[in-house]
Amino acid sequence: MMKFRQEIVEIVEGVLRPGGEPIALHEPEFSGVEEELVLDCIRSSFVSSVGKYVDQFEHELASICGVDHAVAVVNGTAALQVALRLSGVRPGSEVIMPSLTFVATANAAHYLGGLPHFVDISEDTLGVNPIALRNHLNRVTDKRTGRLINRDTGRPIDAIVPMHAFGHPSDLDGLLEVADEFNLPLIEDAAEALGSRWRGKSCGSFGSMGALSFNGNKIITTGGGGAILTDDAELAHQAKHLTTTAKVLHRWAFSHDEIGYNFRMPNLNAALGVAQLRQIESRIRSKRNLAKRYQNAFSDFGHGYCFEERPEAQSNYWLNALVLNPEVADARDEVLESLHEVGVMARPAWEPLHQLSIYRDCPRDDLPVTEGLARRIVNLPSSSFLGELYCG
Amino acid sequence: MMKFRQEIVEIVEGVLRPGGEPIALHEPEFSGVEEELVLDCIRSSFVSSVGKYVDQFEHELASICGVDHAVAVVNGTAALQVALRLSGVRPGSEVIMPSLTFVATANAAHYLGGLPHFVDISEDTLGVNPIALRNHLNRVTDKRTGRLINRDTGRPIDAIVPMHAFGHPSDLDGLLEVADEFNLPLIEDAAEALGSRWRGKSCGSFGSMGALSFNGNKIITTGGGGAILTDDAELAHQAKHLTTTAKVLHRWAFSHDEIGYNFRMPNLNAALGVAQLRQIESRIRSKRNLAKRYQNAFSDFGHGYCFEERPEAQSNYWLNALVLNPEVADARDEVLESLHEVGVMARPAWEPLHQLSIYRDCPRDDLPVTEGLARRIVNLPSSSFLGELYCG
Repeated sequence: MMKFRQEIVEIVEGVLRPGGEPIALHEPEFSGVEEELVLDCIRSSFVSSVGKYVDQFEHELASICGVDHAVAVVNGTAALQVALRLSGVRPGSEVIMPSLTFVATANAAHYLGGLPHFVDISEDTLGVNPIALRNHLNRVTDKRTGRLINRDTGRPIDAIVPMHAFGHPSDLDGLLEVADEFNLPLIEDAAEALGSRWRGKSCGSFGSMGALSFNGNKIITTGGGGAILTDDAELAHQAKHLTTTAKVLHRWAFSHDEIGYNFRMPNLNAALGVAQLRQIESRIRSKRNLAKRYQNAFSDFGHGYCFEERPEAQSNYWLNALVLNPEVADARDEVLESLHEVGVMARPAWEPLHQLSIYRDCPRDDLPVTEGLARRIVNLPSSSFLGELYCG
Repeated sequence: MMKFRQEIVEIVEGVLRPGGEPIALHEPEFSGVEEELVLDCIRSSFVSSVGKYVDQFEHELASICGVDHAVAVVNGTAALQVALRLSGVRPGSEVIMPSLTFVATANAAHYLGGLPHFVDISEDTLGVNPIALRNHLNRVTDKRTGRLINRDTGRPIDAIVPMHAFGHPSDLDGLLEVADEFNLPLIEDAAEALGSRWRGKSCGSFGSMGALSFNGNKIITTGGGGAILTDDAELAHQAKHLTTTAKVLHRWAFSHDEIGYNFRMPNLNAALGVAQLRQIESRIRSKRNLAKRYQNAFSDFGHGYCFEERPEAQSNYWLNALVLNPEVADARDEVLESLHEVGVMARPAWEPLHQLSIYRDCPRDDLPVTEGLARRIVNLPSSSFLGELYCG
C-alpha cells in the first residue's frame, strides 16, 4: 500500500514538477488588463450598483456562452437561487439534484423554502444519470392536476438541477429528454463549467436557465460573482428585476413590486471580470493541456484513472479528478496526506450532501454510484498556468 | 405655490452652487489609497474569499465602531439577515421595525421565513418611537412560555430592529429600555449610520448586533458590501461561520454543519474598503458642514425645515432631509420636479413598506407619524465633497 501512495506522488510530481513552494488546488491568475480596467472603474467612481462594466460583462459573457442574456450577480449561489425561483420553486417544492455537489446547490433550494431531492450520478459523467432519474421518477411520482407529485412526501417536484462536476458536462441529451417527459424545467448548475461544451454548445445554455460562478477558485474570477444565463428575454428581465431589489423604475420614487434581492454584481467586480473573460479561451487550452498530461501520466497506473471527458463533451477540466479503484478507496485520505506532505494541495470530492446532517432527511433515490465515487476521488492541482508552464 | 417651489430651488442652489453638471444625491469618492490597495490585492492574486484585506477591514472597522468584532459580508441586507437569524428569527417570527425604511430591512426578515411588524416613528429622530412601541406591545402581546406572542396573530415577536434613517440615530435609550422590558434582542439596522453616534457611542454598537452597508451610495463604499458588528465573541464566530457556507474547518474535507450562506466579502472589495475607512473622519466633518449650511440656508424658510440631530446624537448626516410643513406636503413631487429641472438629484423618502403590496398584510400599529412624514421629506444632495468645496 505504501508503494501505491508513493507511486501517485511520483506521477503527480512528474506532471507538476514542484519547486519547493506548495502548489495550490486552483489559483486565480491576472495576466491581462485587470489592473487597467479596475483602475478605470475606480476613477469613474462607478464602483457599485451602476456602471458600464456590469453591462459589458453581461454582454460579453452572453456572447461567449452562446445565449441571448446574462445577468451578473454577487455569486453562483445567488444565481441559482434566482433561477430556481423564476422556475417556480416555492416553499415545499422538491428540486431534483445530485448529492455529489457543492452545498450551494441544495442551499439555493432551501433559501426558497424548497428542499433537495437527491438522485444518483453516472460514472461516465460524474453528473446526474438520466436513466436512473427516469426510473426513479416513474417509481415515486404521480401526475396530479398537472404537477409532478412525490408520492412518498406529497410534495411537488418542481425542477431538475444537474451540476456539471469539476467542469465535466452532465449527460444533457438524456437529462433534457427526462425533463421534457416529466414536464420539469431544467436549470443547469454550471458554476464549475464556464467554457465547457456538450456537442459543441456551452454548458449553462441548455436549460431554461443556467447558473455560473466567478469565485476565486473558478476558471475566471470577479473576486466573488455569478451569473444567470438564459435565452428567454422575459426571464432575463425578471432576473434583473429580482436581483436589483425589485425596485420599480422611476426617477426618484422607491417602490418595490416583489420581494427581491440585493444580488447585483458591483461594477468593480465586473471590471475585473471583463478583463478575465478575455483570457477564457487560452485558459481552457492550458487546462485541457494539463488534463492530457495527467491522463498520460496515470495511463499505466494500476489503481485508478484520471477522469476523461466523454466523446460528446469538451470539458474545461476545472479540477482534474483522479478516480481510485474501489479496492484502494480506503487509502484516499492517506493519498491526500502524502500529496500534502510534498506540497501538492489535493482534495477529495465533497461529502455527499445526503450524508450531511443538514440534508440527511431529504427525499432521495438509492445512491450507490454517488456513495462509491465520493470515496474514490482525489482532485489534483489544476490552475491553468500549470498547463502552460511545462507544455513539453 | 410656484413661489414656494422656486424658493426651495434658490436656497438649494445657494448651498450647492451647481455649475451646469447634475448634482447627484450621493456620490462615492476615492481620494485616498484606493488604487494602491486594490492593485496590491490583484497582484497578490488573493481577490476572493481569503486574503489579508478582509481581516484588516474587519479589524479597523471594529475599532472605528468601538466593538470587539466585525464580520464583513457582501452587503447590508446579508448582514441584517444573518444578525436576525443569530438572534432567533425563525419561520413565523415577527420582527418589529419601522415602515419608513429601505425595503431590505423587511426583506431580511422575510428571507428567514419571518415577517415585519411595523411600528410608528418619531418626528424627533425619524426612527422607531419607543413610547409608541411600548404602548403597542402592551396592547397586542402576551407573554406565554417565556416568549412574546402577538395576540392578534398568535405568532412570536422575536426581535426589534430600529433603523437609523438617513444616518440619524434612533432613540437608543428608549429602545433599549423597551427591548429589555420585553426581553427582545435589539439589532440595529445601521446601514446608513456608519460613524453616527448616540451619547458618543457608535450606531451599530448598541444592540446585540448591528448591520452596516458599504453600497456605492453610502458614506464609504466597498463597491458592494456590509458588516455585522458585535461585542459577543460567540456571535461573531457564528456569524463568520454562517457567512462562509458553515464549512467545517479541515485541510481538505468539505463538510457543512449548518445551512449557511455564501456571504463573505471578497478581498478585492475589502481592499477598497480599507482605503475608504481611512477617510471616515474627514467625510463626517464635511457632511456635518454641509448639513449646517443646509440648515442655515433653510432657517428663514417658512414651509419646512432641514432635519437636525437631537442633542444626544452626532449624526453622519448621510442624506440631508428637508421636511416640508404638512400644509405643503402635496407639493412634494412638484418640488422634486423643480430641483431635477436644475440638475439637483433630490429624492423623496421611501414609500412606507406597509403601503407596498408585498408587505401590505403584515401586522402593524397605527402609523400616523410615518404616513405623515413619508409625504413630506425631500432628501437633498449630500456627497461629502459638497461639504468641502464651499466651506465658506
